[in-house]
Amino acid sequence: MEDTPQKKLGIIAGGGTLPRRLIRHCQEIGRDFFVLAIEGNALPDLVDDSIPHLWLRMGQAGTGLKRMEQEGVEEIVMIGTIRRPSFKDLVPDWRTTAFFAKVGPKALGDDGLLRAVIKEIEAEKMRVVGIQEVMSDLLAKPGILTKKKPSKTDLIDIKRGVGAAFELGKLDIGQSVVVQEGLVLGVEAIEGTDELIKRCATYKRKGSGGVLVKLRKPQQDMRIDLPTIGTRTLENAKNSGLNGVAVHAGNTLIVDEEEVIKTANKLGMFIIGIEPGEYLEQ
Amino acid sequence: MEDTPQKKLGIIAGGGTLPRRLIRHCQEIGRDFFVLAIEGNALPDLVDDSIPHLWLRMGQAGTGLKRMEQEGVEEIVMIGTIRRPSFKDLVPDWRTTAFFAKVGPKALGDDGLLRAVIKEIEAEKMRVVGIQEVMSDLLAKPGILTKKKPSKTDLIDIKRGVGAAFELGKLDIGQSVVVQEGLVLGVEAIEGTDELIKRCATYKRKGSGGVLVKLRKPQQDMRIDLPTIGTRTLENAKNSGLNGVAVHAGNTLIVDEEEVIKTANKLGMFIIGIEPGEYLEQ
Repeated sequence: MEDTPQKKLGIIAGGGTLPRRLIRHCQEIGRDFFVLAIEGNALPDLVDDSIPHLWLRMGQAGTGLKRMEQEGVEEIVMIGTIRRPSFKDLVPDWRTTAFFAKVGPKALGDDGLLRAVIKEIEAEKMRVVGIQEVMSDLLAKPGILTKKKPSKTDLIDIKRGVGAAFELGKLDIGQSVVVQEGLVLGVEAIEGTDELIKRCATYKRKGSGGVLVKLRKPQQDMRIDLPTIGTRTLENAKNSGLNGVAVHAGNTLIVDEEEVIKTANKLGMFIIGIEPGEYLEQ
Repeated sequence: MEDTPQKKLGIIAGGGTLPRRLIRHCQEIGRDFFVLAIEGNALPDLVDDSIPHLWLRMGQAGTGLKRMEQEGVEEIVMIGTIRRPSFKDLVPDWRTTAFFAKVGPKALGDDGLLRAVIKEIEAEKMRVVGIQEVMSDLLAKPGILTKKKPSKTDLIDIKRGVGAAFELGKLDIGQSVVVQEGLVLGVEAIEGTDELIKRCATYKRKGSGGVLVKLRKPQQDMRIDLPTIGTRTLENAKNSGLNGVAVHAGNTLIVDEEEVIKTANKLGMFIIGIEPGEYLEQ
């Protein structure tokens, strides 16, 4: 999909290492880019003076948009984790104030706000694209990715997890659930997948290990907040005694796939890329 | 509904103080009763020699049923919290083995197992009744029960919470959610309401306080595992900075209502008994 590499890319950077990978990718292929680093989210050492960038508070969306225009950005990718601020944390500039006035409380769902941001950016003739359109090979492939295969019990747990995660996603609550022996041990809302997995160590029963299931929300825009796993996900899952991880094939980012699969193999865990429709009851 | 007080009551007792309240109630009105205290769940000092009882492992359901029959029990109440054991924790007697063979993995949902237990008991001509049929005044009344009233923001959060909790209930995952400024902070699965509330202290944003919403699952049998709140629920909610609690009117047990409302008033929190249908989007 890298059909327009020459267009200048705006990178709105949240937390984690994916923004760095994207910056490196742009540098490697010689694609022009500009980074908006979100304060309190992007890693402090994400950018240095050699990288064209601007640090911004969430409330300065207006300033950020204007700068992107000035820089001649034509395509924008939003990448990395964003901690959701409360309205009181957002001291808005005038543009952002107008934006919230327009968007209102409907945008308070997990995705609503991000969708509204996209709409606002695209009103400025910049196109918001998904990371998968810019960098290939970041999305989970379908099928079993590891030496370890899910057991029959694991597959039952995956089926139960898909049913639960699918409905949670429809409600715009979260992407992940942990299931053991058919029982939903934990459900992700705002706390994030790592905390979900850690907590389930406490609630796990003796017996078969359980699985993490992580899906894209059915109505989720492919351009924002795709489900993501990394080596830490596997390590946490191992520490909580889970058997493996099932992710939404073609819809989940794997941060450093090679390293993640190596980690899973070392830990004796499975990773499976699944098509949720095949697991949902008809 | 106390139309058959003379029938001998079997009390299958889990954790918490509700079983004790029921025992005291039976003693007060002179109703004959027999307690099956579930090991690892019922409070160790729930019964003494003055109270007709038998301690049982979960796996000894068969033995328990037989004893109830011998005792001439005609009605059974299941009351108090039950930690779900893993299958490996259940070393079954012959009757229980047959039961699991019949019930199979479909019973692994949160309520499925309990419903199957009821069916099994009723095959023995004993009637399983809800606590509300035996003791009046334990269920939450509709409307605002406290001096503090929910604010407009709280009502928006309650609406969002009802939508989420209703779907979670349909999925047989949990009964409770915590919502702040329209955002679902946390969702209850196996960890229980107290842990849910405590965790949300970490994920709460500055700004308006948020609410706990607790509903009966739509398909839940009124005779088992009704949503329950007590003073501890209010204290935890206060510690996590929530504004109040919305419970399913007529379908939620309030352990010691007078004390709970006194606590809420002291803490400046609201309790509202709601009819979910009035909050669900049509």
